[in-house]
Amino acid sequence: MPALTLTSLEEVPFIRHGDDLADIILASLIGMQLELLDGDILVLTQKIVSKAEGRLIEIASVTPSKAALRHAGICGKDPRLVELILRESKSVLRVRPGLLIVEHRLGFVCANAGIDHSNVQAEDLNPSEWVLLLPEHPDDSAERLRVALRKRTKRTLGIMIIDSHGRAWRNGTEGVAIGLAGMPALVDLRGQHDLFGQELLTTTVGVADELAAAASLLMGQADEGTPVIHVRGFPYPLREGSLSEIIRPEREDLFR
Amino acid sequence: MPALTLTSLEEVPFIRHGDDLADIILASLIGMQLELLDGDILVLTQKIVSKAEGRLIEIASVTPSKAALRHAGICGKDPRLVELILRESKSVLRVRPGLLIVEHRLGFVCANAGIDHSNVQAEDLNPSEWVLLLPEHPDDSAERLRVALRKRTKRTLGIMIIDSHGRAWRNGTEGVAIGLAGMPALVDLRGQHDLFGQELLTTTVGVADELAAAASLLMGQADEGTPVIHVRGFPYPLREGSLSEIIRPEREDLFR
Repeated sequence: MPALTLTSLEEVPFIRHGDDLADIILASLIGMQLELLDGDILVLTQKIVSKAEGRLIEIASVTPSKAALRHAGICGKDPRLVELILRESKSVLRVRPGLLIVEHRLGFVCANAGIDHSNVQAEDLNPSEWVLLLPEHPDDSAERLRVALRKRTKRTLGIMIIDSHGRAWRNGTEGVAIGLAGMPALVDLRGQHDLFGQELLTTTVGVADELAAAASLLMGQADEGTPVIHVRGFPYPLREGSLSEIIRPEREDLFR
Repeated sequence: MPALTLTSLEEVPFIRHGDDLADIILASLIGMQLELLDGDILVLTQKIVSKAEGRLIEIASVTPSKAALRHAGICGKDPRLVELILRESKSVLRVRPGLLIVEHRLGFVCANAGIDHSNVQAEDLNPSEWVLLLPEHPDDSAERLRVALRKRTKRTLGIMIIDSHGRAWRNGTEGVAIGLAGMPALVDLRGQHDLFGQELLTTTVGVADELAAAASLLMGQADEGTPVIHVRGFPYPLREGSLSEIIRPEREDLFR
């Protein structure tokens, strides 16, 4: 009976700069009497990875550029925040009142370059003065955690860091991978014939994003509730993997 | 320990026109000794719903229009197939060699209006001559199944019909809801402040699509392998729901 089981890790504390996420995850799993097995995957919200990596920025430290002032005039956001968004972005796709959609420097398209203010309260900081950037290199963050957990558990694990993105065409945000290690981002499933049998096509399935969506469902939007999800039963073999598999190059993208 | 468990239903037979999906699902669940509980959700691939509803079309019966011939000249697909795609669509968004992306009459954006040739082999039909359209009204299909299952089990269930869609910006297909009943498509999560605390915003999460992605992961692309997934632990209350919640109206969509 093939089954996929996702479990929220319990008693994960507020994460602060410098915290060892491997330690924290293993402590939670021990408390839950949940032993890691080969093939398991751990899914982390970007917020705790960013906080562990010290990606909090004090907004007062930022001086907006002319471009930031111009975009801020359209979208109505704080020009200093817009400046941070631009620094984290390759290009601006859309600016409208209340909305700033960019191509993030990591390659994906999202609102506000993924910059977030929530969770800052837990730091005893004034939430109006601090924002949280995405991890600098989420694939590397995932890989470091994978190596640390392998060292201590001897298990072959997948690690994924996720965020919630809006989408073209459909309402509602959805969990997506922004970094991963030790697991495929895409799986090519052969065996699909062309509608008239003349051509063998490949169907490429976004398995990491599908799992990110599943994990996001359990995380909800609770700021500090369930920042790590344990996954058992991922139906594809683990392998090396990277966010770069998922990013569609601009030249191949018909919807920018 | 909040957990979400997805289980593939076993021994679901090839589905044919007129089959009673409620019968077939209950027989499978009994064989697996898996009893439905209030709050459970059943996720079905569109293929078996379409087949039960007799949505197979013989391609030889189709005469292409001038518009179909014109688009077929660009995308290189069979003009009769293009004719069917156009009949199932409100508008054409992009046509390129090998690619035809439309707004489906049901409102979502997808390739080829979701028309599929696979599974046709199981019907002892020539796969080069038959194609499968999406269910005519997937919300209604889901509601009929929900009512039938409630009658027989007395359980309050959610039902979702899913397909795999390509996406803007990101490689890889992902499972998405194309019809649902008895469950939310979106959930509004309050409590997010604006980055400067001046405004209370709502974050709308695409929970049905997140669950569709999770179920799709277990279904794989196997034509007849695992067309129904049982879900336990969906973390939101069930309610009436509809695909229409998810469809972003063209006037609000910045990426068409």
